[in-house]
Amino acid sequence: MIGDYQKRCQQRVDNCLGTLFSPPRPQLDRLYQAMRYSVMNGGKRVRPLLVYAACEALEGDVALADGAACAVELIHAYSLVHDDLPAMDDDDLRRGQPTTHKAFDEACAILAGDGLQSFAFEALARDPLNPTDPSLRLDMLASLARAAGPAGMVGGQAIDLGSVGLKLDRNALELMHRHKTGALIEVSVRLGALASGRADEQKLAALQQYAQAVGLAFQVQDDILDVESDTATLGKHQGADIARDKPTYPSLLGMDSAKTYALELRDLALEAVAPFGPSAEPLRQLACFIVERRS
Amino acid sequence: MIGDYQKRCQQRVDNCLGTLFSPPRPQLDRLYQAMRYSVMNGGKRVRPLLVYAACEALEGDVALADGAACAVELIHAYSLVHDDLPAMDDDDLRRGQPTTHKAFDEACAILAGDGLQSFAFEALARDPLNPTDPSLRLDMLASLARAAGPAGMVGGQAIDLGSVGLKLDRNALELMHRHKTGALIEVSVRLGALASGRADEQKLAALQQYAQAVGLAFQVQDDILDVESDTATLGKHQGADIARDKPTYPSLLGMDSAKTYALELRDLALEAVAPFGPSAEPLRQLACFIVERRS
Repeated sequence: MIGDYQKRCQQRVDNCLGTLFSPPRPQLDRLYQAMRYSVMNGGKRVRPLLVYAACEALEGDVALADGAACAVELIHAYSLVHDDLPAMDDDDLRRGQPTTHKAFDEACAILAGDGLQSFAFEALARDPLNPTDPSLRLDMLASLARAAGPAGMVGGQAIDLGSVGLKLDRNALELMHRHKTGALIEVSVRLGALASGRADEQKLAALQQYAQAVGLAFQVQDDILDVESDTATLGKHQGADIARDKPTYPSLLGMDSAKTYALELRDLALEAVAPFGPSAEPLRQLACFIVERRS
Repeated sequence: MIGDYQKRCQQRVDNCLGTLFSPPRPQLDRLYQAMRYSVMNGGKRVRPLLVYAACEALEGDVALADGAACAVELIHAYSLVHDDLPAMDDDDLRRGQPTTHKAFDEACAILAGDGLQSFAFEALARDPLNPTDPSLRLDMLASLARAAGPAGMVGGQAIDLGSVGLKLDRNALELMHRHKTGALIEVSVRLGALASGRADEQKLAALQQYAQAVGLAFQVQDDILDVESDTATLGKHQGADIARDKPTYPSLLGMDSAKTYALELRDLALEAVAPFGPSAEPLRQLACFIVERRS
């Protein structure tokens, strides 16, 4: 059932995203192609789904959340393009396809990533696809900028790169993930809630608690899949984290404890949204899906 | 006299920028150091100056333009960090100092650039340093996102990289510069005008005409200096464009015609702001300074 919801969200955000990549002049064809290639790749769209599901949880109109859904996916896509670069994680495969710097070239991949980040902020700043209240949108823009920046996602990648080969303890690993993937997942939920026009401090706090648990669960499960899944299912090289001597939850806690921890985090997420009614059903199903997925 | 004005603008924006780089936790020290290194480097701050001067031309309070001044400089700084990378222009010297990827490392430079772009949008989205009217700020954010992105600055770098070794004609060269440097210079003037709270369509159009002429003049003079100045004065390698077989105005028009063209552009800029009163004096002086500078 989350599969149907996911498919609907995926189609919805892909329809919006697909309109962004028409080059304004032929000299920019290649750059726009690289941007399109980096985004329109059959991605799972977990972050847009969180935007829409949070908006619906507060009984908002999802059409008001389209801008936010595009924005978080554009930030996510740009971060993957840059993280895959030779100077960073040096990955040649992403979602079963050559990474952007392999399909195009390194310079083009750097620029495509840079352009996607600008696009993300433009998606929230421009009129259509967003709530009309400009103060609300300024709040959304400030939240996204903070979550995407050095105090959030970019900082997480820096911490991650600084951790290779180090013996991280559980707190240090969690700090890295809270920045690297958690910040963008949290802000996805926040943006969806804000876009609904029906958020208050109490609801935002409950949703933040949900998002923190789900974000961490997502990462724990990713680490588990890196060990247990195979390259074909993952669409990226299985065992890549281990090969790089990166700290992971299974390596730190052992596989059984890592799996228990993922389930605990799912329960924390469900608890956080317990006060919400049936409108929060997609958020609940997503929390379950995240720890059950195989890729 | 523009020297004094430039110094005041430089100090004003440097005071604002200097507050941005306090790492929220020690694990992020190196990333924030790299960001600070990339920005607090004694840069000329031409774009912030344009922000302030445009705000003053419309008799606005420059304190309302601080956010915009920071934002355009942060975008400019990030673009230099990424343009200098080995996969792009592969420069090891910038403003007389090692480039960011030389002083730190490549991964850190990519992330510092990414973080600076997020910071730029945050500087406009957060409350202090900006006009209070949220609609106005949304307009400013959308304008900056567009100018910085693939239809603007990022697109310009893509066109530039695609042009090395090609025989560009004057139109093609101008198209490249209009994107690569022109878009950010134009939006600097626009943001300053908007920040004043006193802009109307007619004034914005006149200021845009000014900015287009000044932006191109800046580039023509840069090309001239690349031939005529020396590495110590420039703070980057003299003759770098020629060595890379990049098209330039002197190589295309001849040196004398390039100099005449720079002066024509200055006159166009002065003409555009002729209807403004004495408040536009800094804009006028800047147009003159740009074609007279030696570095």
